[in-house]
Amino acid sequence: MTDTQPTSAIIIIGDEILSGRTQDVNVKFIAEELFKMGIALKEVRVISDDEKAIIETVRLLSGKYTYVFTTGGIGPTHDDITAASMAKAFNRKFVLNKEAHERIVNFLQQRGRDITQGIKIMAMMPEDVSLIDNNISASPGFSIENVYVMAGIPEIMRDMFTNLKPYLKKSTSFISKEITAEAGEGKIADLLAKTQEAFRDISIGSYPFKKDGEYNVSIVVRGKNVQSIKDALKNIKNGLLSFGIKFTEKRT
Amino acid sequence: MTDTQPTSAIIIIGDEILSGRTQDVNVKFIAEELFKMGIALKEVRVISDDEKAIIETVRLLSGKYTYVFTTGGIGPTHDDITAASMAKAFNRKFVLNKEAHERIVNFLQQRGRDITQGIKIMAMMPEDVSLIDNNISASPGFSIENVYVMAGIPEIMRDMFTNLKPYLKKSTSFISKEITAEAGEGKIADLLAKTQEAFRDISIGSYPFKKDGEYNVSIVVRGKNVQSIKDALKNIKNGLLSFGIKFTEKRT
Repeated sequence: MTDTQPTSAIIIIGDEILSGRTQDVNVKFIAEELFKMGIALKEVRVISDDEKAIIETVRLLSGKYTYVFTTGGIGPTHDDITAASMAKAFNRKFVLNKEAHERIVNFLQQRGRDITQGIKIMAMMPEDVSLIDNNISASPGFSIENVYVMAGIPEIMRDMFTNLKPYLKKSTSFISKEITAEAGEGKIADLLAKTQEAFRDISIGSYPFKKDGEYNVSIVVRGKNVQSIKDALKNIKNGLLSFGIKFTEKRT
Repeated sequence: MTDTQPTSAIIIIGDEILSGRTQDVNVKFIAEELFKMGIALKEVRVISDDEKAIIETVRLLSGKYTYVFTTGGIGPTHDDITAASMAKAFNRKFVLNKEAHERIVNFLQQRGRDITQGIKIMAMMPEDVSLIDNNISASPGFSIENVYVMAGIPEIMRDMFTNLKPYLKKSTSFISKEITAEAGEGKIADLLAKTQEAFRDISIGSYPFKKDGEYNVSIVVRGKNVQSIKDALKNIKNGLLSFGIKFTEKRT
């Protein structure tokens, strides 16, 4: 039985990440959500607020993966060039989206705020896009072909992602199980390699970390085949027992 | 006077990031350091622990930028394939690095620890590399051509980066100045666009954030030309004053 595996990429558009000013937190959120939905995240790219970089990256990744998610660059200022770049990337006209414009104007009027020049800019989008709802500040994101264009502000991005989720094809969820072993990686490398070899439809990751000055290791078994995950875990636990290595299983 | 601008890219090698398990913190650290050194960070890619992906990405970015920094995948377990992939990417033999091996063995012997099978694996590297010192756990990273291969564990990566810094060509530092304005982006979009137009050798970024339920905005002016930065800041502050918008200047 083959499960056609949906794939994806994230493009973070942001000089503020590349200059070290801002710690990105959007990747982890989207990655976790995709993992649960069974959509494999194949790569992430952080690129500059640069038209050429955006166009090239979007075209390339849109052709390569089932879905592409972008964050950043859809505000009203001169450095917000994502929407215009998307129009160019897909050879579409760049137009005022009336529905988007109306939503922003209504939102501001209800709150007695000024209707500034910037509002029109935030409603400029490629022609024929689907809007992505924004329950935080109204100004919508949009999807164009298989690309989902979201805000960079984490709170708004999370809301947008939650709203676009129903439009993604779900697949069998990925499952992740984790064991923490009180040993350095060197001691268990063989055991893990042999287990990985025996169960090729799952992946086994090994992540050392320091605890009380000693390196411990988190062993993570990921995949879609529940039986393989169960059997691989059993194999690893038996191995650790036979070495006399203490371990704890993370409850998930 | 032209300043030959060194450029760079970061490659984060790690299924743990792509699966959403781990929040990356390495990008911000390296990005901040490069910014201070005047080395422009042009892009970041997060890729899977996958030989083909590593080889392709390293070859491409190594040809495109002055420096490439990688983190992750240099431990002793089966999923640590960065070193072997680097050898393939640069058509070098994959050999035991005697100096690296000695350092690890000494480190462990001094602490009365076991010399496990994994030690040899961690000392396997492409032929003719330069080692990157690791004062935390001895096991070194390495540089091959213009690529600097570091550990993924943040504490060790930071130590390695600090140790390799003297080998990078310094350039004029980037400077970043920040003003926080109590206004939505829409109100100042015009002012920022005009200022950006007047000062083309610096870049002006605008980053909204919420404060007490209202959107404020951080205006960040970045570049190498001190005079342009000063003049652009003055221009922005005068504009904000004329609009009656309150602002504070971040002290740096």
